[in-house]
Amino acid sequence: MFEEKVKEFEPIFYPRSIAVVGASTKLKVGSVWVWALISGGFPGPIYPVGSGGGKIGDLEIFPRLRDIPGEIDYVIVAIPRRSVLELLDDCAAKNVKAVQFFTAGFSETGTSHGYKLEKQMLEKARRAGIRIIGPNCIGTYCPEHGIPSLLGRIGKSGTVGFLSQSGGIATKLIEVGIARHINYSKGVSFGNGIDLDASDFLQYLAADTKTRAIGAYLEGTRDGTRLFNTMKGVTRAKPLVVWKGGRTEVGARAALSHTGSLASSAAVWSAMLKQAGAIEVSGLEELTDTLLILQRLDRWPGMNAAVIGGLADGGGGISVSAGDAFAESGVNLPPLSAETEEGLSKLLGEVGSILRNPVDVSQAQPRGVPTLFRAIELVAADAAIDIVLIQEDVEILLPIYSPTGLEEINRFVIELAGRQDKPVMVILPPGSAEQERLQLEQRFLAASIPVFASPERAAKAISNAGRYFCRDGA
Amino acid sequence: MFEEKVKEFEPIFYPRSIAVVGASTKLKVGSVWVWALISGGFPGPIYPVGSGGGKIGDLEIFPRLRDIPGEIDYVIVAIPRRSVLELLDDCAAKNVKAVQFFTAGFSETGTSHGYKLEKQMLEKARRAGIRIIGPNCIGTYCPEHGIPSLLGRIGKSGTVGFLSQSGGIATKLIEVGIARHINYSKGVSFGNGIDLDASDFLQYLAADTKTRAIGAYLEGTRDGTRLFNTMKGVTRAKPLVVWKGGRTEVGARAALSHTGSLASSAAVWSAMLKQAGAIEVSGLEELTDTLLILQRLDRWPGMNAAVIGGLADGGGGISVSAGDAFAESGVNLPPLSAETEEGLSKLLGEVGSILRNPVDVSQAQPRGVPTLFRAIELVAADAAIDIVLIQEDVEILLPIYSPTGLEEINRFVIELAGRQDKPVMVILPPGSAEQERLQLEQRFLAASIPVFASPERAAKAISNAGRYFCRDGA
Repeated sequence: MFEEKVKEFEPIFYPRSIAVVGASTKLKVGSVWVWALISGGFPGPIYPVGSGGGKIGDLEIFPRLRDIPGEIDYVIVAIPRRSVLELLDDCAAKNVKAVQFFTAGFSETGTSHGYKLEKQMLEKARRAGIRIIGPNCIGTYCPEHGIPSLLGRIGKSGTVGFLSQSGGIATKLIEVGIARHINYSKGVSFGNGIDLDASDFLQYLAADTKTRAIGAYLEGTRDGTRLFNTMKGVTRAKPLVVWKGGRTEVGARAALSHTGSLASSAAVWSAMLKQAGAIEVSGLEELTDTLLILQRLDRWPGMNAAVIGGLADGGGGISVSAGDAFAESGVNLPPLSAETEEGLSKLLGEVGSILRNPVDVSQAQPRGVPTLFRAIELVAADAAIDIVLIQEDVEILLPIYSPTGLEEINRFVIELAGRQDKPVMVILPPGSAEQERLQLEQRFLAASIPVFASPERAAKAISNAGRYFCRDGA
Repeated sequence: MFEEKVKEFEPIFYPRSIAVVGASTKLKVGSVWVWALISGGFPGPIYPVGSGGGKIGDLEIFPRLRDIPGEIDYVIVAIPRRSVLELLDDCAAKNVKAVQFFTAGFSETGTSHGYKLEKQMLEKARRAGIRIIGPNCIGTYCPEHGIPSLLGRIGKSGTVGFLSQSGGIATKLIEVGIARHINYSKGVSFGNGIDLDASDFLQYLAADTKTRAIGAYLEGTRDGTRLFNTMKGVTRAKPLVVWKGGRTEVGARAALSHTGSLASSAAVWSAMLKQAGAIEVSGLEELTDTLLILQRLDRWPGMNAAVIGGLADGGGGISVSAGDAFAESGVNLPPLSAETEEGLSKLLGEVGSILRNPVDVSQAQPRGVPTLFRAIELVAADAAIDIVLIQEDVEILLPIYSPTGLEEINRFVIELAGRQDKPVMVILPPGSAEQERLQLEQRFLAASIPVFASPERAAKAISNAGRYFCRDGA
């Protein structure tokens, strides 16, 4: 599906050369872009363009785009809006394939001048066979091809594709991705989207073999029917998670002046997303939590989870609250099999311990870590269980097990996750040992173990991911 | 209201002396408690009791409670359940005022033996005029009086009181409190609550002049009518935030084996809490977020908030999503006054900037920090605004403003919060600069500025706090 998009979008995500218009030896957005491409390791020629002359690093700044000797696939534009039409003529003369406009001041201002300018840009581009990304956007991100974020940041190349109508949200997606090891195949922020819009990028990401799951931040669309049909096609191929901005009147008002999007009612969007088979989420946390799970799971194992808590004392309340969180998100915590319950009873005794699911293993602690490991193994081996979640309250475990004991536990969890077919995930709630918690989070994430800050967030993310795989007809 | 409780509970939260039964020179829970009291700086005599003899630090271990020469107000018990009745006789002989049982294995096991033992304990205690905290609990926390958590941790003394049926949740409340500067007057985990239960502690905290707001984690109650009437009385005096554990079948099953609580349906509890004027929350994050606000606001300023975002570029999407988050939580983001809008227009121009509420001040960045500060001042001074929220995306601000520029911004925010009557709060979303973000969070919190990790959490907490102050008849 949408296979023709792969070739069409090659100059956008894999350009052989990039020109940056609006560069200078001073600190301007255009110059920042040149530095970002250099530091990102973009493999082709980078051509800074700006009237001031001089050099950026080793790169000569060309006075005009027409002065560049070589071929140019892709142009990034950060000049005032009054010059964009002339620039498009230059692009046409140089046979440029695609132009990304950082330049703002178009339909998002609500002025007729802004709308008119957009129309003229589009006409010029269409005539010359140029595709436009933006305006009012920060454009593409493709770690595999050395295209970093505007901040010059570049994460590991992975399997998640994203699109965002907002540059700020795109930047946050990249930053949170780096922090939480959500690795992107590619992504794009397309702002006002006057030419290429959500539907186009969705079709490309659906066809892109490097992308296994897609996340989207959308504020509105000019063609709802096309977007709906596109999403229906996309979700037949891979999971699509959509965060709709501007669901409320206040949010919609902001969206209008942000990307010129007329947001429809939240209910209409929700119904549309549901019918299209997309997973709707309502914020950055939920979007990234869900992508964290989707990037790791080719096949979905099922919705039956076990939560193991109380690795130190006081697991009772943690079990109760985890039970509520999972049940309220619609994730099944089935009873353990009779054999597992019997095995746990033998290991832990009965007093003060909850041998149900959520499993409170606090009685293991006085018996030592081998008993704890055996208890976790028993639960993980239960045929009724598809997903294993382990809650660690670091600041409580540290004084009770000592750093050495906690290190043993963490090595065990990583080792268990490595040899298990079932996904193992960790809940690491904040507390008063934030340094240790953050370090541990990084270790688990590096070992491909999804980490969540609360049972509520873990439950919601699992429920979201499961909704895709458990659709009717899936 | 409930003033008689102040005197009655004095031996519980301000005991003159404490004995710990179940102490030994080995690492046992009782010994941990003795060490915790020593390190917490408990001001009165601490008497370890245990059959093995020896010393803990400088403290002699007494073979039996009866051997202690001085008077004993409070006894902490960590011995097997078979010995608790005999111990209560010893307590009666020594004229002890209150006994806290860590010991578990009672009604929470669901056995008739467990229920019977509880009944016998209660009879003995009543006859001797002894109050029981627990069993199956970790008891009291009172930083002002040197009573730390079981982990030996003690935060600053403050104005929030808490009660929890779960020891694990109580421990987490203390830990998150230390991490987020939520400072407690006192708190208690009362487990099975066979004598003193939620109603008793609520009445005490309502009467306690040191306590200005109360947080509670409850799983169930043996006397719903009394709890309801108590809560009605409490909320006339101060805000009460309740997290009900065991709202779902899975959670309720866990609650039964945790504290022996028969959880009623979530709907019944929600209706009861609402009628009693309590604020219902559904997890640890929401509870602590709400307490973070309530501890700082004696008088509630009103529900009209302004969100200022986009301190660096890309504030548009952040404004849209903040707008949605606040509107969905029922927090009003009113339009700014004409004067403020005009002032912002003059300062920032119009292109690409959202001069509404949420306010996108990204156009200030190229003009320098004085312009940014002036823009924030304008919004904060608007008469339509009661609460000022500033969103900082640290990992984006750092490269754009440099550490020096960001430092200037943060000093300005702290200074603004200090001289403003209106509360100033900060949204600090996670990203790829977690070290810097955590440091900054600590600085803001130390300056009494509430900090939240997302607009959604800030909005929810403000909405929760506002619900108390904006009740009918309040």
